[in-house]
Amino acid sequence: MRIAIAQLNYHVGNFAGNVGKMLDAVKKAEAAKADVVCFSELATCAYPPRDFLEFDDFILSCEEAIDTLKAASHHVAIIVGSPTRNPVIEGKDLYNSVYFLHEGEVKFVQHKALLPTYDVFDEYRYFEPGSTFSTYEFKGVRLALTVCEDIWNVGNDNPLYTVCPLDEMMADQPDVIINASASPFNYDHAESRIHTCKANIDRYHLPMFYVNHVGAQTELIFDGGSLVMSPDGEIFDEMVYFEEDFKVYELDDVIKGTQSVEQPKDKILEIHDAIVLGVKDYFGKLGFSKAIIGLSGGIDSAVTTVLAVRALGAEHVRVLLMPSQFSSGHSVDDAVALAKNLGIQYDIIEIKDLYEAFMTKLTPLFEDRPFNVTEENIQARCRGLLLMAMSNKFGNILLNTSNKSEAAVGYGTLYGDMAGGLSVIGDVYKTEVFALARYMNKDGEVIPENTITKPPSAELRPNQKDSDSLPDYDILDEILFQYIEQQQGPKEIIAMGYDEALVKRILRLVNINEFKRYQTAPVLRVSSKAFGMGRRMPIVGKYLS
Amino acid sequence: MRIAIAQLNYHVGNFAGNVGKMLDAVKKAEAAKADVVCFSELATCAYPPRDFLEFDDFILSCEEAIDTLKAASHHVAIIVGSPTRNPVIEGKDLYNSVYFLHEGEVKFVQHKALLPTYDVFDEYRYFEPGSTFSTYEFKGVRLALTVCEDIWNVGNDNPLYTVCPLDEMMADQPDVIINASASPFNYDHAESRIHTCKANIDRYHLPMFYVNHVGAQTELIFDGGSLVMSPDGEIFDEMVYFEEDFKVYELDDVIKGTQSVEQPKDKILEIHDAIVLGVKDYFGKLGFSKAIIGLSGGIDSAVTTVLAVRALGAEHVRVLLMPSQFSSGHSVDDAVALAKNLGIQYDIIEIKDLYEAFMTKLTPLFEDRPFNVTEENIQARCRGLLLMAMSNKFGNILLNTSNKSEAAVGYGTLYGDMAGGLSVIGDVYKTEVFALARYMNKDGEVIPENTITKPPSAELRPNQKDSDSLPDYDILDEILFQYIEQQQGPKEIIAMGYDEALVKRILRLVNINEFKRYQTAPVLRVSSKAFGMGRRMPIVGKYLS
Repeated sequence: MRIAIAQLNYHVGNFAGNVGKMLDAVKKAEAAKADVVCFSELATCAYPPRDFLEFDDFILSCEEAIDTLKAASHHVAIIVGSPTRNPVIEGKDLYNSVYFLHEGEVKFVQHKALLPTYDVFDEYRYFEPGSTFSTYEFKGVRLALTVCEDIWNVGNDNPLYTVCPLDEMMADQPDVIINASASPFNYDHAESRIHTCKANIDRYHLPMFYVNHVGAQTELIFDGGSLVMSPDGEIFDEMVYFEEDFKVYELDDVIKGTQSVEQPKDKILEIHDAIVLGVKDYFGKLGFSKAIIGLSGGIDSAVTTVLAVRALGAEHVRVLLMPSQFSSGHSVDDAVALAKNLGIQYDIIEIKDLYEAFMTKLTPLFEDRPFNVTEENIQARCRGLLLMAMSNKFGNILLNTSNKSEAAVGYGTLYGDMAGGLSVIGDVYKTEVFALARYMNKDGEVIPENTITKPPSAELRPNQKDSDSLPDYDILDEILFQYIEQQQGPKEIIAMGYDEALVKRILRLVNINEFKRYQTAPVLRVSSKAFGMGRRMPIVGKYLS
Repeated sequence: MRIAIAQLNYHVGNFAGNVGKMLDAVKKAEAAKADVVCFSELATCAYPPRDFLEFDDFILSCEEAIDTLKAASHHVAIIVGSPTRNPVIEGKDLYNSVYFLHEGEVKFVQHKALLPTYDVFDEYRYFEPGSTFSTYEFKGVRLALTVCEDIWNVGNDNPLYTVCPLDEMMADQPDVIINASASPFNYDHAESRIHTCKANIDRYHLPMFYVNHVGAQTELIFDGGSLVMSPDGEIFDEMVYFEEDFKVYELDDVIKGTQSVEQPKDKILEIHDAIVLGVKDYFGKLGFSKAIIGLSGGIDSAVTTVLAVRALGAEHVRVLLMPSQFSSGHSVDDAVALAKNLGIQYDIIEIKDLYEAFMTKLTPLFEDRPFNVTEENIQARCRGLLLMAMSNKFGNILLNTSNKSEAAVGYGTLYGDMAGGLSVIGDVYKTEVFALARYMNKDGEVIPENTITKPPSAELRPNQKDSDSLPDYDILDEILFQYIEQQQGPKEIIAMGYDEALVKRILRLVNINEFKRYQTAPVLRVSSKAFGMGRRMPIVGKYLS
């Protein structure tokens, strides 16, 4: 039997586009004499459809997509994920299912049993868990079809769940495991997936085809890396990451084993490639092509700009340099040098006049109160306004340049430097931003060395440095990582040896700045816990604050 | 038996505050010779704690709160909601439970079985559903203790659930039903609650004490209205809405029936009172007291300002009038008249110079492109900047004045008139804003008549009217209601008789403007489907768009 995997970049709700891509893959599978072609979880509507699932019209469109694919399944069978309606009145209205289509018919459907309802996942909001398990024989090969999380409870080792779908299916003595996934990227997740696939094979000693989504849907980046595993538990093939792919495998070869293609894995490389894909798809799927960025001469906007250029092309990225009276001379020089290195359009607008125009209006109302964060924010907001004006006039999307460290502690101006349609590095700690910059420069200077080596500064008051108001980023990022990714509380973090007052101050800053993060752009998720959908915190809470 | 209900305003994560309030109520119950005092769902940590529940330290604080209450339960027993740990490794880590505390001990715990995981609710994200049901006898009276949603599946009539907790408890022949709730307001919900309580009593013929939260937690407004129902299905007492309350009932009186206190119900009155509480608690729970609002002379900012004054007091609300060259003369007059009617501080800043300062900088970059939405947005963003500067300088929170109709179709400027810490009327359609204004003027003119009767306009270009770019609000609001609250698709709405092109245009506007709503302030929820946590839509989706 010849099994094709189509690792495709779908688009939420774009039924014509998704079905068109799948029909193309069916044709390729036919040409390659495959017996069956496998697509991923909820491929008809793309993952995650969120509350679109609550519209009958949307489910009808999913059903029409299945009808179209069914009609194309005469020569090659199709395995594809799509929602199905729960025919029973009790329980949620839908199942998250995988279909087996062949000879113009739906031959078999298996519902997902394990519904992730944590972090960025809301599956129990929409779906009833499947509770019956069966397998399907096709051309003498018995297939165990599963959906994503269904393979993540190996022999009931996952405390979240009480059923192991493959354990149930083993009664039928299947020959192959096929998993249709939509498993979003984080920089640890490729390793976890391989580990989980191996754990399944250790238990069942069967070949396995793990078919993942690729492509970004707003903040979630699906990284591909679909896997073909031999029954000895070794990787037979690992598809590329962050790109579409299509391959056909002879099942007997996979059972024999040894092809062994593995993709390189490196945290900073993966973050880099993930973000490039995230930016590219955000624009492409919204129907935009051009970005604008405020370039300060600092490292965050430099790294964001490089990522944007790699995603969209230099001709589609322009930057504004907006120095104030507090900007150092080298800031403009560094920004210009970067723009020239990248070959992108840059313009310079001095904001001193604008700032002074506002101060002229506001000083009579300010009652002689001293210079404070107000005046700093006015500068940041003048810049935000200029960038949004250029965005509106030319149809560029403004990219936000805030990093995760400053987003965490609220070191940024709402509607100022926190503006933008997409937060590019909002899930990247400052220390990781430096690593990204070094990685970008590995084959020659792209980002000016001075941008990387000078002390970080917002340049919103004379001689300001980030270190005036924040601890060193090395320490800050470690404490933030423990609190945000590891969900450790103050006692646990202090017990690791960090200063008690510092830990309490940082955790308090994170909690009291929830109101700022609530109003910022979606953040491209690259860690196991990003700000946004996956971290739901009260604004008026009074906890550690 | 004497049963006290304490309808209290809790604060998420504020354990000292919540426990302190409960201890005061215990003392009042003792003084009133009550046998037991009832608090609401998750009263120790307040509802909804969201992802704070994932922190062990937070759960420890809940347990400490229970220990403190336990120690105070010697004279009067205490019924109170709090999370408990799931001792079994399988399943979610927590239960959402109701405790019976007495004689310094935990006498009984019942876990919530029905976990709302839809709209604004994420309970299955955190909690394992309870699966065993029992009752507790106290002083010869057998109590059936339930948590919120557990009474919303009367005899399994709710398709979301497969178990009816009270049906299970009836094997013990309980004498009284007590329900600890945290049931958020929408303008239809008080009626639904009474209907549900009656349906339970129709089935079980028992007296019932329904104890609700009161007070707002960011966007969710808990309205109180706790109910005491007689076994004949009549309301014995309905506590006040939108305020704390404390009452003691002789169980025999409730069983006999007839006291019959009911609260008035009127949609616009309820929305008014809910928003006033929502604003008051947003400020109070964040530790702020003062608001600033941009007052345009239009109806949205007028209604928002009146609500703010009623929530915070005239001395805590100030407004900025920021006319441009496109503002009509009457706009400033109407705004000044309102400020004088309310006795609030107002200041006038003309924005023409600021607008021109930006245009001077930007014109060389604009390549002679014509006046468009860019220039409109610059005006709105100059106003946003001025308001935020005043907010920063004086510690006032900027209140957002966008209504639901314009938020739906994206008729607003991100970082301009869409700025602010809290969206006050973002769940109120324009037609309902007019009704609120009329209601506010019922005892004499508060809002100038001209503000109510003139055609709505953003005044961002010469002679602009909302009706230039939007359909009449009567029609727009009906179509939006069908799409947003009723979750009807285009076919269903067109079938109701609305123009096909208009329906498609409006639904498309709603979908393509998700990116704007994503970045706006939390919206005080007054309907069954508000923008925000309860409506989760993809940004890069390509559906009806």
